[in-house]
Amino acid sequence: MICYGRVVNLTNSQRTMSASVAEQSGGVEEILESNLKGTELKEVYRILYGRQLKPIEFPADLTKLALEQNFQILGYVVEAEKEQCRGPRKVRIAAIQNAIVEPTTATVVQQRDAIHRRVGQIIEAAAQGGANIVGLQEAWTMPFAFCTRERLPWTEFAESAEQGPTTKFLSQLAKKHGIVIISPILERDESKDDVIWNTAVVISHTGNVIGKTRKNHIPRVGDFNESTYYMESTLGHPVFETAFGKIAVNICYGRHHPQNWMMYALNSAEIIFNPSATVNGLSEALWGVEARNASIANHVFTVAINRVGTEVFPYEFTSGNGKPAHKDFGHFYGSSYIASPDGCRTPGLSRTQEGVIIAEVDLNLCRQVKDTWGFRMTQRLDMYGEKISAAADPNYRPHLIREQ
Amino acid sequence: MICYGRVVNLTNSQRTMSASVAEQSGGVEEILESNLKGTELKEVYRILYGRQLKPIEFPADLTKLALEQNFQILGYVVEAEKEQCRGPRKVRIAAIQNAIVEPTTATVVQQRDAIHRRVGQIIEAAAQGGANIVGLQEAWTMPFAFCTRERLPWTEFAESAEQGPTTKFLSQLAKKHGIVIISPILERDESKDDVIWNTAVVISHTGNVIGKTRKNHIPRVGDFNESTYYMESTLGHPVFETAFGKIAVNICYGRHHPQNWMMYALNSAEIIFNPSATVNGLSEALWGVEARNASIANHVFTVAINRVGTEVFPYEFTSGNGKPAHKDFGHFYGSSYIASPDGCRTPGLSRTQEGVIIAEVDLNLCRQVKDTWGFRMTQRLDMYGEKISAAADPNYRPHLIREQ
Repeated sequence: MICYGRVVNLTNSQRTMSASVAEQSGGVEEILESNLKGTELKEVYRILYGRQLKPIEFPADLTKLALEQNFQILGYVVEAEKEQCRGPRKVRIAAIQNAIVEPTTATVVQQRDAIHRRVGQIIEAAAQGGANIVGLQEAWTMPFAFCTRERLPWTEFAESAEQGPTTKFLSQLAKKHGIVIISPILERDESKDDVIWNTAVVISHTGNVIGKTRKNHIPRVGDFNESTYYMESTLGHPVFETAFGKIAVNICYGRHHPQNWMMYALNSAEIIFNPSATVNGLSEALWGVEARNASIANHVFTVAINRVGTEVFPYEFTSGNGKPAHKDFGHFYGSSYIASPDGCRTPGLSRTQEGVIIAEVDLNLCRQVKDTWGFRMTQRLDMYGEKISAAADPNYRPHLIREQ
Repeated sequence: MICYGRVVNLTNSQRTMSASVAEQSGGVEEILESNLKGTELKEVYRILYGRQLKPIEFPADLTKLALEQNFQILGYVVEAEKEQCRGPRKVRIAAIQNAIVEPTTATVVQQRDAIHRRVGQIIEAAAQGGANIVGLQEAWTMPFAFCTRERLPWTEFAESAEQGPTTKFLSQLAKKHGIVIISPILERDESKDDVIWNTAVVISHTGNVIGKTRKNHIPRVGDFNESTYYMESTLGHPVFETAFGKIAVNICYGRHHPQNWMMYALNSAEIIFNPSATVNGLSEALWGVEARNASIANHVFTVAINRVGTEVFPYEFTSGNGKPAHKDFGHFYGSSYIASPDGCRTPGLSRTQEGVIIAEVDLNLCRQVKDTWGFRMTQRLDMYGEKISAAADPNYRPHLIREQ
């Protein structure tokens, strides 16, 4: 039985869609499953996505709820071998992709509260689906307004990581369901000069904040004018020891930097979340490659989460590409997925609809794959530490060999 | 017009095949193009492989030759923007995947000479197809006999990088056609204690040897008992300045280590070859991910080359997996491809047939993508040099945060 891309609810969320028809294809899985059958479908998935994953059979009332509330729900099981000396460490990891709810002309509080309510619904569903850890997308409480380069009102979405309304909202949900939540927000560090950061707050299953981490690499690409709003993190590569495994958060553009993923893994991460915001036309061909490569190279699970929908702003802006000023950011293509250290991955969520994907994983797989492939054992870390430091020197001379 | 996976010759090479039917699917492209059409095929390729690449229209006598000689030939053009201050730097990169020719019971010289003749044919075709640089697979002159752990006769395939019969053979071809050839061989370092290495020789378009580089990371995985034959390179990450661009060679298992790719790029590589030998059941789900991720992360072209066919050995051996002793290595699945710094890639060569794939690239694309995405600018190399060195210390303490 082929189970990839089992889509419970295919209806597009009309609320989030102002994109052109061309932007609205459902994605690879939808096309493959409409056109291929039997061994051919199985063979394409085997090569593209690795070993076949069993679907999670959710209760009927949960799939009905998703249909009624107009979000997609997918679930897969990533099994590991049984060991003699360790019991299985099964964890259900959920990734939620959401769209903005209100128009960007609504007040900041209206916009944020509406997203809280909507994502709250999907978190409730994730908890019903057995999720232990829920990861949200980058800056999930707001439109990705950095394309505008305007300050007010967008910077008013920034809030305290420890005491802000979003952390308070999620702490209640975390405690209620006994789940860990990764909440990537625009942070206002009120205790340190009111500086803005791009931050992920890690909330314990007890409802307490375990800690926070910040975006290590900031883009200067097209409409991603983020370097005009916040700087690179100075918090390093912390890993959070939760009730459900050791978790790190590599925010958005940090996924393009393999050494960033590597440092989280060297700090003992077993699951690395990659909350993102990225659009069609810029990064879609890279999306299935980068987080998945990181899961392979580092013997960890990775969770790639992208927002969905097209966001339209009140005032026009240009995109540094010679094209006329416009008011929309292009299409955030969703396609969130979870990748396993052994190279397999789940199908992606829809390119056009909100949703939640849940993977039931056995964290023992990380060490099992580490023992099989041995990339940590063979990584020659001391050599690379020296070489990378040498290459960072402005006077470094590349090792070039010419014909004599 | 959809042009991915234009297969000139689909007949399986009977000579190389002793694998089961299940191992003989032609691959993703063959299945997609038999079942999908029009916008759906285009959309799947767009998401999976990035922007559409124009095929190279080879002369009819060349495609006829490939058909007669029973190898596949594919070609694609990877265009870049025109610049004002630099002319285009168009280079045709070729990757050749081959099978062994004689049974592994033939003499070493018979086996090697037969492979020389066969690959010589394909190199001639690549030159006719306009190739400037030709990359061959790992240890291309021999069966991948390291699964056996036997010494003689396999170590007799090792030869001098500078003076061996393979370098002499290729030097003539390189000079005749004015092409650069990357020749990965099992090296016997006769001048230094007769030690064996896994080496790639870079031969200039003049026929001279520019230099050599060795495998930086050695596997201890399944049938890849290579660590019992040779050690990790001490030559660092050299880049070879050729008439057709700056070239590096990341041999096989080194593709699993992102920091290895990175060091070649920091040493100015524009094209990184990854000559490999890897089998179905072990790595196929990783194959399309790793070299491609390296091309994206490092703003370079990468060339992933895998051997093809199933190799059977005279004496049985075990694979460290609890299964009975056997004589074959499993199926080397070919699927060689070329990836571009902007995230697009060519289709793969067949999973079952020998072949050559040629990409006409404009090397200006490397810097153009570097300017767009800016991963080098934003990489924080000094920080990672320090952090990786710190993590290499046996007393390193991972940065872990627990709930207070």
